[in-house]
Amino acid sequence: MARVVVDVMLKPEILDPQGKAVQGALPRLGFDGVSAVRQGKRFELEIDGELTSTRLAQVHEIAEKLLSNPVIEDFEVHVAEVEG
Amino acid sequence: MARVVVDVMLKPEILDPQGKAVQGALPRLGFDGVSAVRQGKRFELEIDGELTSTRLAQVHEIAEKLLSNPVIEDFEVHVAEVEG
Repeated sequence: MARVVVDVMLKPEILDPQGKAVQGALPRLGFDGVSAVRQGKRFELEIDGELTSTRLAQVHEIAEKLLSNPVIEDFEVHVAEVEG
Repeated sequence: MARVVVDVMLKPEILDPQGKAVQGALPRLGFDGVSAVRQGKRFELEIDGELTSTRLAQVHEIAEKLLSNPVIEDFEVHVAEVEG
């Protein structure tokens, strides 16, 4: 079994209203020194059996077709944990 | 300048309907072998100046008070990048 993480973030050129909202709230809570905040999604996938290169390629396909919108988002895949 | 990442995920015992929805869609798209999917949030914070331990403690406080709901969510903070 392996745990694979897919991080999906808006492309840098895309406006991020959620990130801006968080950034705007920080001074009101007394936090300074944070020049930008961007918010995205994180997916953790538990993969059955051995994490072969074919399986990893499949996760990339899942990330591209289901977990992200390639027009406005970028994604990164990394292996978090491998058991057995 | 440093980039600090805050990953926020639901606690394991909390039901994750978004993750279940993604998991349910996978077989329909022809993907098998994924036993579980969990979805969370990822924040990237750009920190001005040097990333001192005080600054990092401040990010932990931001994560706890603003970016997550400690009752149902866990968070992890890690430094992604340090420049200059």
